[in-house]
Amino acid sequence: MALIVQKFGGSSVANAERVKNVAGIVTDTYKAGNNVVVVVSAQGDTTDDLIEKAREINSKPSNREMDMLLSAGEQISISLLAMAIEDLGYPVVSLLGWQAGFETDSNHSAARIKKVNTSRLKKELDKKNIVIVAGFQGLNKYDDITTLGRGGTDTRAVAIAASLHADRCQIFTDVEGVYTSDPRKVSNAKKLNEITYDEMLELATLGAQVLNNRSVEMAKKYNVEVEVLSSLKRVPGTIVKEVTKLEKMLVRGVTKDTDVTRISIMAVPNIPGIAFKIFGRLAAKNINVDIILQSVGRNDTKDISFTIAKDHCDLALQTLKDFDLLDGLEIISDSDVAKVSVVGAGMETHPGTAATMFKALYEKDINIQMISTSEIKISVLIDKKDADSAVSAVHAAFFAE
Amino acid sequence: MALIVQKFGGSSVANAERVKNVAGIVTDTYKAGNNVVVVVSAQGDTTDDLIEKAREINSKPSNREMDMLLSAGEQISISLLAMAIEDLGYPVVSLLGWQAGFETDSNHSAARIKKVNTSRLKKELDKKNIVIVAGFQGLNKYDDITTLGRGGTDTRAVAIAASLHADRCQIFTDVEGVYTSDPRKVSNAKKLNEITYDEMLELATLGAQVLNNRSVEMAKKYNVEVEVLSSLKRVPGTIVKEVTKLEKMLVRGVTKDTDVTRISIMAVPNIPGIAFKIFGRLAAKNINVDIILQSVGRNDTKDISFTIAKDHCDLALQTLKDFDLLDGLEIISDSDVAKVSVVGAGMETHPGTAATMFKALYEKDINIQMISTSEIKISVLIDKKDADSAVSAVHAAFFAE
Repeated sequence: MALIVQKFGGSSVANAERVKNVAGIVTDTYKAGNNVVVVVSAQGDTTDDLIEKAREINSKPSNREMDMLLSAGEQISISLLAMAIEDLGYPVVSLLGWQAGFETDSNHSAARIKKVNTSRLKKELDKKNIVIVAGFQGLNKYDDITTLGRGGTDTRAVAIAASLHADRCQIFTDVEGVYTSDPRKVSNAKKLNEITYDEMLELATLGAQVLNNRSVEMAKKYNVEVEVLSSLKRVPGTIVKEVTKLEKMLVRGVTKDTDVTRISIMAVPNIPGIAFKIFGRLAAKNINVDIILQSVGRNDTKDISFTIAKDHCDLALQTLKDFDLLDGLEIISDSDVAKVSVVGAGMETHPGTAATMFKALYEKDINIQMISTSEIKISVLIDKKDADSAVSAVHAAFFAE
Repeated sequence: MALIVQKFGGSSVANAERVKNVAGIVTDTYKAGNNVVVVVSAQGDTTDDLIEKAREINSKPSNREMDMLLSAGEQISISLLAMAIEDLGYPVVSLLGWQAGFETDSNHSAARIKKVNTSRLKKELDKKNIVIVAGFQGLNKYDDITTLGRGGTDTRAVAIAASLHADRCQIFTDVEGVYTSDPRKVSNAKKLNEITYDEMLELATLGAQVLNNRSVEMAKKYNVEVEVLSSLKRVPGTIVKEVTKLEKMLVRGVTKDTDVTRISIMAVPNIPGIAFKIFGRLAAKNINVDIILQSVGRNDTKDISFTIAKDHCDLALQTLKDFDLLDGLEIISDSDVAKVSVVGAGMETHPGTAATMFKALYEKDINIQMISTSEIKISVLIDKKDADSAVSAVHAAFFAE
């Protein structure tokens, strides 16, 4: 008998019909001979509705009372799902965060789990109950309810799977799994059967918003096998785990990221440590720098270019302007750029990957502004207008029609 | 410094504006130098809405999951009220039933408090916090959430006041207090400043639905001073306590009850114990008998009449029909009756009360079918059509214009 943790988001339980659909998935898993723990979010717009109720009363409510308010949304969804499972005739119990043993710090509205006391969870599983858990909430040492911050339920599901040594953590979404590229944009994008944690992390970082990044890191840390699958279509999804069969694929996926700005500082004097000083100042402002390119310029100077997330652009430009060593230098920013990446653990041992990618771009006349590589990823910065055709061309180069 | 417990029903916090109004009442009480504990119900129709959500999913959900679902409604209202008080700049904390230390039995949906552990409540009061409590819920020994049954928040407020030895328990309603009669029907009905527990109990039993009956019993048992007052109009209400000044009033109030049926069994043979047997059978069916009249009939028989609540009529008639000793006897039921009562602790020492009441009815040509008296109450059964004029006439006889 296996133990499966299943996680459903708010849209999966938005109304009575969908709650019943989820109850069907859960009981089918139970019927197949598994123990099942279900983590479920508040229904549809409940959280937004409660926030609006609070806003009408107090524009700056305390985080403690907001946690008290918002945790009620999950309480409603776990009990409704339990009722739907009761209606199908299966033994079930819903548990609030504190009942499930989630002890957190006191950072209301963005609390972190300190410890999971699994005794109640295990007791209910021993009784052969399906257990529905409110994954977004916990209890601090003062016996006050905390919430873990929005979007944290993927991570909670993985953490529960880890603490129970579950055989698999299934994350149900509105897509059927992880694809080689965005299936809405690239016609022959393929669903992957398996992917490694590192590959998934690279894809998640690159904007393939299938799994919350922290949840993948946690799955890797505790070696939890994760499956991403659809709550609407009953087909196998994509399994994320440590070692995969690799399926003879060099490249696991092709993604684009348009949330990026390139900043260039022209003709920087050759002062020792100048690059360190520039990036140190940016880091001090919590600005995450991605690709860095340093080129030899005119007259013993160099041009330094780097990319950052778009919404850090103003802060970065101000930080550079305030840096006296750069006084009088030309600083250019360009947000009409896109980062296109190929990700795959196989490329580590297959040096031709970059060449294949660059050839595909060359044949489409797409100019490469910057290049960055890691063991399992190659990224290029190009004109934003070329992004979609670049993804298609690179995808076609690696994946047969 | 006094400790005041204040209770507000769901309609008092139905929307943002009303929540703010309640916050104003609470903080005014706090500003006046009192410690304040507030018991508040779920907002307006929240409970009905949640029940409807459950019904769409499961026509017979378990009581445990219903309690999980319905307790969320209070969680929303206590946090919103806390936010409104925060907005006025006062220290406040909301507590769920289990946080406030309400330990109950496991009778889900109609649980009874077994113990109140007041340590958290006292700690918050020591910190000078206004404490908002979810009064409708508790926790059983399995750490599962229970609810106390609808309408039980009056009783909870009194129980909390008792366990904290509060100086007063204020029950806020949509009326300004307890009146000598229904102010919508009797033009010169007067608001009472004070009333005893026993008088209030008689009035509550007689349909003056100002206070939940169990709450008055509990207030009497633990000698909690209760004040009934309006949440909309800031005027003193009616204080319910053990000994009142009596204000030289014989009679505290005049009420009518039309939810009553008279049943008569005609010409019952004079068998020893026949009355005991009849009422024993009715009691076995949980039929509460109110006024009983036994009259000498023809030929060594007697007529037995009694009143019961209207919705027990069919069951009572069937029970009597099934009783072989009554075979062939004529059994009459009449629901076109009303019970009109005067209540007042003063009548105990003033024998003229009944005479005054009967004279007022006689002068209006109202026929009395049955009479019942207790130390502090006189009730008469009359034709339903005469009920309102009877109340007016009796009220006028005791209370000057």
